[in-house]
Amino acid sequence: MAKFDYDLFVIGGGSGGVRAGRLTAALGKKVAIAEEYRYGGTCVIRGCIPKKLMVYASHFSEEFEAARAFGWTLGDASFNWDTLINNKDVEVDRLEGLYQKGLNSAGAEVLETRAELVGPNEVYLVAQDKTVSAEKIMIATGGTPSRMPELPGSELCIASDEVFDLKTLPKKIVINGGGYIALEFACIFAGLGSDVTVVYRGEEILRGFDDDLRENLHLEMVAKGIEVLCMTEFKSVSKGSGGRKALTLDNGAVIEADEVMLAVGRGPMTNSLGLEKAGVETDKRGFIKVDEFSKTSSDAVWAVGDVTNRVALTPVAIHESMCFIQTEYKDNPTSPDHDLIATAVFTQPEIGTVGLSEGGAAKKYAALDVYRAHFRPLKNTISGSSQKMLMKIIVDAKSDLVLGVHILGPDAGEMAQTLGIALKTGAKKADFDRTMAVHPTAAEEFVTMYQPTYRVVNGERQQ
Amino acid sequence: MAKFDYDLFVIGGGSGGVRAGRLTAALGKKVAIAEEYRYGGTCVIRGCIPKKLMVYASHFSEEFEAARAFGWTLGDASFNWDTLINNKDVEVDRLEGLYQKGLNSAGAEVLETRAELVGPNEVYLVAQDKTVSAEKIMIATGGTPSRMPELPGSELCIASDEVFDLKTLPKKIVINGGGYIALEFACIFAGLGSDVTVVYRGEEILRGFDDDLRENLHLEMVAKGIEVLCMTEFKSVSKGSGGRKALTLDNGAVIEADEVMLAVGRGPMTNSLGLEKAGVETDKRGFIKVDEFSKTSSDAVWAVGDVTNRVALTPVAIHESMCFIQTEYKDNPTSPDHDLIATAVFTQPEIGTVGLSEGGAAKKYAALDVYRAHFRPLKNTISGSSQKMLMKIIVDAKSDLVLGVHILGPDAGEMAQTLGIALKTGAKKADFDRTMAVHPTAAEEFVTMYQPTYRVVNGERQQ
Repeated sequence: MAKFDYDLFVIGGGSGGVRAGRLTAALGKKVAIAEEYRYGGTCVIRGCIPKKLMVYASHFSEEFEAARAFGWTLGDASFNWDTLINNKDVEVDRLEGLYQKGLNSAGAEVLETRAELVGPNEVYLVAQDKTVSAEKIMIATGGTPSRMPELPGSELCIASDEVFDLKTLPKKIVINGGGYIALEFACIFAGLGSDVTVVYRGEEILRGFDDDLRENLHLEMVAKGIEVLCMTEFKSVSKGSGGRKALTLDNGAVIEADEVMLAVGRGPMTNSLGLEKAGVETDKRGFIKVDEFSKTSSDAVWAVGDVTNRVALTPVAIHESMCFIQTEYKDNPTSPDHDLIATAVFTQPEIGTVGLSEGGAAKKYAALDVYRAHFRPLKNTISGSSQKMLMKIIVDAKSDLVLGVHILGPDAGEMAQTLGIALKTGAKKADFDRTMAVHPTAAEEFVTMYQPTYRVVNGERQQ
Repeated sequence: MAKFDYDLFVIGGGSGGVRAGRLTAALGKKVAIAEEYRYGGTCVIRGCIPKKLMVYASHFSEEFEAARAFGWTLGDASFNWDTLINNKDVEVDRLEGLYQKGLNSAGAEVLETRAELVGPNEVYLVAQDKTVSAEKIMIATGGTPSRMPELPGSELCIASDEVFDLKTLPKKIVINGGGYIALEFACIFAGLGSDVTVVYRGEEILRGFDDDLRENLHLEMVAKGIEVLCMTEFKSVSKGSGGRKALTLDNGAVIEADEVMLAVGRGPMTNSLGLEKAGVETDKRGFIKVDEFSKTSSDAVWAVGDVTNRVALTPVAIHESMCFIQTEYKDNPTSPDHDLIATAVFTQPEIGTVGLSEGGAAKKYAALDVYRAHFRPLKNTISGSSQKMLMKIIVDAKSDLVLGVHILGPDAGEMAQTLGIALKTGAKKADFDRTMAVHPTAAEEFVTMYQPTYRVVNGERQQ
């Protein structure tokens, strides 16, 4: 008789947990996975996927506008929220089914229950009221939006979890936050016809990204009619007239809105998880501490994805799980590689970025060459849109190595992905220059910027 | 007194000629450039740019369809050809102006005349009825569509030069050819509402591209309602009823159409150019022969772009001109680099490709690993479109070097451009694998295909 009920028990059926469970089961190991809500996790159920579907939906209003300049006449366009939400739900259900099917096919036991740690190798299954044992336990419970309990009236607000299931499209919505979730939803609602205000306490939206992207995204959002209030905070929320909410800002202004959304950060899903019973330590914000192989302070417990404080992105969680399998089951110790992670922000215009921002690079390198193009994409020469595209290449002047690439404009995410391969390959600016342009594309700008726009020496921009 | 009137005389105001003229003038040389039609050449006036604007226009009909599934209700859409053509003309005029302005600013003399060689260092200017001399002469007269004089009734047909200025949108158009120009216009007209038939004498459209792309583009075009007849040839064209044309095929079928378009290849623009007077040799198809520095058989004459038989693409012509300047004026002999040229075909769906096709690679490498993804893009999970996306990576199994990448689907051109940088940098498949996915994008497929789909050994596909 085996010493444990399972070789691996995975808590959490999101992207990280499902990948670990599926691949480990496929190796012939005895695996169970428990999920208390819905398989698919944040990405599939209330994150990346439904968000991007809403981005597609909201982008059509711009297309209708552009179409006129290209010769099309359209009747009045109107938008039906229920159709979008229903069709989105069908797709989310389909993907959830695929996740479960993949686990089943690989031979994993798929449990629909909350699971809590009760010892270093023991898990209590709430729905079954039963405790099982496992040689290894993987925690992949993910993250959850901050609800700002300190804000008076925060219980009247929604967060991203609820936004996918609103009963109606808000005529007016105020979003608190300056990060990518706040901004993506601001653009979604604006595109669907809502009146949108973004309130952010910092100096400029999208902290951590290249300043040029931040400033230009801010300008483009304002040009689309979104109100962006920086250096401003929520003071309180209360019930307004006719089911609306009355929001008071720290400058005294009061805004009435149909919905008030909080998008001020995310925390780990570790509540009552029994971490202390298994000897799993957390940092001061509650994220599970892990070593370079995703192992926790407990010898039998690992953690991947948003429940750890590394990089909260779906592909990173998956990658961490795949490294775990190499390390634990394939005798090939592998640390997750968090260097040069390309990312996209699905605002409108979109952002794509990989590597160091200009500011970040200036702190690490004595001399930078910055190549910058800010231009009207070909489509907009006719469409009437004033939206411009921004592209930047940050180069170490000494080695010619490309340190970062930043894009604001259509298809920025697709370009960031493919440019990410080039940077991971160690592309130098000379490699960009040696590449023939594909004409007419937007991306050809990347290979036709022969002269630096400016140089940054010891952190100072030169003429 | 200088020995010659000019240091450099450029014949042809397209992309290649203008780049040579502008940059040489900017070096302080005495430069003149002559163009008999319009500055901008094929690319700006009757090629890449107006074509892509028409692609944008024609793509909206698909967007309108997709929008409904995302919750939008639209009135009936109708299309006005004149609006598109007028707005396209405004943009083409603007770009033509920019080309002339760039030349003027650099100090080049911009001549609006036909120019013909009358000696190794002499050019006759037709409009001025005057002969001038130049130390070096650059021929950049470009190409022109084949008119199929051997086809009875070919004078009733149009070619791509005329398609940009048609008075009305043809209800029915038949296009002869299976190359990218034929296919791009087939998709443009279909998207704008025309009934389209493509007639091609070869076995499969888009010869020279990866077979998978060819077959799948064929299927997607048919799915959009385009009739594609391979292994079929035009026999004759005659006047039909009501101003239409009656086309007879070699299988005996007769098709009546508003327009019949020939897109069966392009030849060099060398007619009456006086090449023999300057000792400039051509190949049997009339293309100017050049050495690895774009120099002709005449010591004082160079040629770049489509008038030579190299790669007929705007960026290649520009690159050849820039190499000419390095070689002749900067004491840095530089041969144009025609290796790993990424290209796009702006069909709908779009094609992007860089490097070797599977078939081409199989002839050169003993063992290939082929990674292939054929999937419904996220947008189409809701849009109702059955259009799938195809991505392929061709890898040398021995060295792990990525030999080719092929894409059929939205944004394929942008991806080909950026993947072109990665391949030029020498990316191996391991570099693709080490790159983190950007989720949700289409391009993330490129970095998540961990296992080969199949292997090709000594040209034979294995299981």
